[in-house]
Amino acid sequence: MIITIKKDADEKNLESLIAWIKNQGLEVNISRGEFQTILGLIGDTHQIDVDLINGLNIVDKVTRISEPYKNANRKFHSEDKIVDINGVKIGGGHFQIIAGPCSVESADQICFIAEQVKKSGAKLLRGGAFKPRTSPYAFQGLRGEGLELLTEAKKQTGLPIVTEIMNASHLPLFENVDVIQVGARNMQNFELLKELGSLKKTILIKRGLANTLEELLMSAEYVMASGNEDVILCERGIRTFETATRNTLDISAVPMLKKMTHLPVIIDPSHAAGIASLVHPLSLAAAAAGADGLMIEVHNDPDNALCDGPQSIRPEEFEKVSADVQKILKIVGKHMD
Amino acid sequence: MIITIKKDADEKNLESLIAWIKNQGLEVNISRGEFQTILGLIGDTHQIDVDLINGLNIVDKVTRISEPYKNANRKFHSEDKIVDINGVKIGGGHFQIIAGPCSVESADQICFIAEQVKKSGAKLLRGGAFKPRTSPYAFQGLRGEGLELLTEAKKQTGLPIVTEIMNASHLPLFENVDVIQVGARNMQNFELLKELGSLKKTILIKRGLANTLEELLMSAEYVMASGNEDVILCERGIRTFETATRNTLDISAVPMLKKMTHLPVIIDPSHAAGIASLVHPLSLAAAAAGADGLMIEVHNDPDNALCDGPQSIRPEEFEKVSADVQKILKIVGKHMD
Amino acid sequence: MIITIKKDADEKNLESLIAWIKNQGLEVNISRGEFQTILGLIGDTHQIDVDLINGLNIVDKVTRISEPYKNANRKFHSEDKIVDINGVKIGGGHFQIIAGPCSVESADQICFIAEQVKKSGAKLLRGGAFKPRTSPYAFQGLRGEGLELLTEAKKQTGLPIVTEIMNASHLPLFENVDVIQVGARNMQNFELLKELGSLKKTILIKRGLANTLEELLMSAEYVMASGNEDVILCERGIRTFETATRNTLDISAVPMLKKMTHLPVIIDPSHAAGIASLVHPLSLAAAAAGADGLMIEVHNDPDNALCDGPQSIRPEEFEKVSADVQKILKIVGKHMD
Amino acid sequence: MIITIKKDADEKNLESLIAWIKNQGLEVNISRGEFQTILGLIGDTHQIDVDLINGLNIVDKVTRISEPYKNANRKFHSEDKIVDINGVKIGGGHFQIIAGPCSVESADQICFIAEQVKKSGAKLLRGGAFKPRTSPYAFQGLRGEGLELLTEAKKQTGLPIVTEIMNASHLPLFENVDVIQVGARNMQNFELLKELGSLKKTILIKRGLANTLEELLMSAEYVMASGNEDVILCERGIRTFETATRNTLDISAVPMLKKMTHLPVIIDPSHAAGIASLVHPLSLAAAAAGADGLMIEVHNDPDNALCDGPQSIRPEEFEKVSADVQKILKIVGKHMD
Repeated sequence: MIITIKKDADEKNLESLIAWIKNQGLEVNISRGEFQTILGLIGDTHQIDVDLINGLNIVDKVTRISEPYKNANRKFHSEDKIVDINGVKIGGGHFQIIAGPCSVESADQICFIAEQVKKSGAKLLRGGAFKPRTSPYAFQGLRGEGLELLTEAKKQTGLPIVTEIMNASHLPLFENVDVIQVGARNMQNFELLKELGSLKKTILIKRGLANTLEELLMSAEYVMASGNEDVILCERGIRTFETATRNTLDISAVPMLKKMTHLPVIIDPSHAAGIASLVHPLSLAAAAAGADGLMIEVHNDPDNALCDGPQSIRPEEFEKVSADVQKILKIVGKHMD
Repeated sequence: MIITIKKDADEKNLESLIAWIKNQGLEVNISRGEFQTILGLIGDTHQIDVDLINGLNIVDKVTRISEPYKNANRKFHSEDKIVDINGVKIGGGHFQIIAGPCSVESADQICFIAEQVKKSGAKLLRGGAFKPRTSPYAFQGLRGEGLELLTEAKKQTGLPIVTEIMNASHLPLFENVDVIQVGARNMQNFELLKELGSLKKTILIKRGLANTLEELLMSAEYVMASGNEDVILCERGIRTFETATRNTLDISAVPMLKKMTHLPVIIDPSHAAGIASLVHPLSLAAAAAGADGLMIEVHNDPDNALCDGPQSIRPEEFEKVSADVQKILKIVGKHMD
Repeated sequence: MIITIKKDADEKNLESLIAWIKNQGLEVNISRGEFQTILGLIGDTHQIDVDLINGLNIVDKVTRISEPYKNANRKFHSEDKIVDINGVKIGGGHFQIIAGPCSVESADQICFIAEQVKKSGAKLLRGGAFKPRTSPYAFQGLRGEGLELLTEAKKQTGLPIVTEIMNASHLPLFENVDVIQVGARNMQNFELLKELGSLKKTILIKRGLANTLEELLMSAEYVMASGNEDVILCERGIRTFETATRNTLDISAVPMLKKMTHLPVIIDPSHAAGIASLVHPLSLAAAAAGADGLMIEVHNDPDNALCDGPQSIRPEEFEKVSADVQKILKIVGKHMD
Repeated sequence: MIITIKKDADEKNLESLIAWIKNQGLEVNISRGEFQTILGLIGDTHQIDVDLINGLNIVDKVTRISEPYKNANRKFHSEDKIVDINGVKIGGGHFQIIAGPCSVESADQICFIAEQVKKSGAKLLRGGAFKPRTSPYAFQGLRGEGLELLTEAKKQTGLPIVTEIMNASHLPLFENVDVIQVGARNMQNFELLKELGSLKKTILIKRGLANTLEELLMSAEYVMASGNEDVILCERGIRTFETATRNTLDISAVPMLKKMTHLPVIIDPSHAAGIASLVHPLSLAAAAAGADGLMIEVHNDPDNALCDGPQSIRPEEFEKVSADVQKILKIVGKHMD
């Protein structure tokens, strides 16, 4: 961490800042130039509150050199994290597809789709029970009943289930859920993250629409600092000025995150573009870029889906995506198994 | 609402879509062109689920002509909404400054600042008890104890209090709070919005960092559709590519929102820029652009504030801001009273 | 095109607008609703000036349904455009890699790299002679001399050359250049585009950092409307809030552009991320997403490159990229030949 | 400038880097930590090419502490620059409004508007002759003829004229132009900037839609480094995800630029929002935020303007804007004279 001191800083205040820093167990290297004095902090600075220092009158600016996250930092965990969900592994060469409908609608629907995607290679079943919708007038999901239907499908197919939580108070309903998803809009719902950190379940965190990769890792850090290291990161498109696609899939996030962290990184091509015909090319791109998995919306009847219809593909299209992705995986040295 | 039908659409499916639309109580105007057929829906379309129609196989795209919000829509409420908080009015010519520290730290601190800002014209006291922080290692606020200290300051000064809620489960602690703030990161925490809609308290909704004005109004719609019409909107900067300021204050949001909605609109210059020296010019700009109020961080000792120090101003600076803002208000026909 | 008329519009002005539209050879479908009247324009509207209509007092808003570009529109050109550069084909299943150094530095350097990339499969040589640099104090390229060195390398290797133009007045120097590149910062330099439209050379247009796909196609339209249909589009990253990578590669632009236009689409992974280690994964992702080619910076000695060093790869790394891309191409049914 | 060295850097390479830096006339302060070594460069680093250093194999990252611009830097020019255009002063307390039509259409039109805006306090006349238009099918301006009509209006009213240049080859036509405007799309047309730097005319540079304040200052630096110090900066809205307004006016750019540079800063509220009814509130906001001037589109007949109609106001509306702006100026200590 580099602290640039103002030109006319009071010497006494500067000394007390230096003393405070040393008190935190850090060394300080001081460079005095004509226009500015610079303090270089040496040691583990991830718990230093940048805002606190920035607020001091004598400080011009604070520049981080090292990362503010530690549990999620590749530097301290050189080996890929492999998350194990009832025997289904993600990370470290293991690639998985999470597939299922946007919303759970009925026992028949969810079980039918579960069977279909399983046949094509998906090892995890997704389905929305609690649905975050921009409009209060739009369908909000079957909620508790949806979770029961998912559990039913899990029993029938053996696929572990992945579904989104919108509020920590719903946690008792999530007992049978294998992977709890934190949606993009809740990525910085810190109270929720802390509660999920105390669970023994895998947490899948989706990147917020306007959140940096560093912020995504800080949200993972919230869960991990609370004791739960089973975290999967999901890139699902960010908000930019472009309107041709619903969001802009940040494909570079995959190789960048793999440098920054040891956690598994997956891509959700369905939400990223919001267009069903883009799911195939973006899924192949994700696998080629080094992702550890995909999360894909599949619907038996997209024309009548209750929500997010435009971005869902049919089981027969999913079969093609899965087959082509597996061909790509061979080239990049990964496998679905 | 305009529905563009694909060139080669099945005629039967088209007819059943038209029948379904008429069933919703809408009229349909059909234009058949060489390259596409267009359906114009006439009537109240705000409850129509765009995604549902977009998902149909025969549909090329759906274009909204009218707004998806109704309770918050200026078209249906031509007169400015005046929110009354224990006698303090905002909107319809009434301009108010909400001021106070970023975080509540102690009884002395909050009471001292409350007295100071009251003297300079602030009619509402703000102070953070539950603090959303990007890092799990940063100070998270005094929480319940902070709310007690705020209540104490309210008793001493008579100023109604404004503070942020992070989780609906904390609501029992907010009994003495006059205005409940929904932070930018929770703007689309729809479960929370619904719960706040059932209260008889004013709700102040901050715009999310990557949310459009329409989405902000949809969040207001969540609260209003649940029965609570006392909503204040707050622009506090959006996330853009510019890094010189922490966020980019969208000043045009003020006159645009005044066209779109009858609800009061305020500006938070402290968070928008993240730089104390910008609070004065941005406050004046907000008043000049037609805002109904300001939310400003004031600290007796910014050099030692526990968080967000860089953006807080001192009581004596606040006095100058308040005085100059009042001069601007005369020009635009508003008043602090 | 849909024109929404204001509620209280003068009937006479409305009639004269309708007459004017019919004069343009279009049909008008009129829907009169309680809150607004809507005009649906049927026919070829791509030459209608939206701003002109938007400026009328009686008009509330104008919504485009069809695209404002025609020469570049897939709807009117269902078959892929195949651009032929001295026998090297791009588009319609033909995939090509354009490779070479950021800046041309010397005859030895450019000829050495040209031989290296040719050996690994590149069919076109790139090299910067005129360099757009943010700082006036940074190296600005060898300019005219650089073009001569490129011509030298072309003679030695037979590779057609691709290089950027910054000003139409430099055109006489570009006689031996096979593909003229319009840089991202010049994408809307309309005077330049018009001049390039009168040439018989292939024009490679890079997407501007803040330009939409529609605007990119409008710039192609400038060149094509002036008579030159040999246009290649290049996605090279857009500017967003994310700072971990220099720009955000919009991978979805590939399949979206393929739907919108028949022109070839290539990806520049070097500039998109600005990080050499990301060139391999992003190149594979581009090929997997359906791109028609790549533009890659290769340097024999990145540690001493005069500019853009961090994003250049070495010849041996390029060989690996090219080999792996060719494996991906088989899966998506394309070929480098 | 801070250079972070990789953990396992070769000691010999590090030594030669340090020697090279010292050769540039800079001092180096070296901090060796467990995880990284940091070099602090002390002295004038604005001519150091960051990319060059970033490209070195031993370098992890380079962090600028001081600004890469010097001529435009407030640190070296503490007094406000006052630009004098034939006696009309901008900067240092002098506030001016540049007003006129989007496009010059006829002698009658431009002279009529010139008289009107002069009467209301404008001291400079703007008018577009060369028009950058996204579509090749839209009106491109009267070009050379437009410049003649502007000159005519200048003769009649005595108002100095401001108009945009699109290509350096048009310069001979600009002899009678007092202020040459560089449009947003040309802000990084470095060849053009260099040519303008050799003139003895004031240059008004508009910020690009996706350009940072630092990049805007680097473009000013291009002009200034070539010898022309009469530069005015103009904020006209940046491109963000928000679509309610055409662009997002970055009002914080005004006080930020005033800290970063001594050059005058003006606001163009017409292009920023693209909506005529927003010109009044945004003009007041600009004056309140500390701008040195405004650039406003005024049209005698916006309903029939040939371009950009929606954002132009009428002379009677301009009179009101000018009057209210002057009231604001008194509060912030500026004056139009």
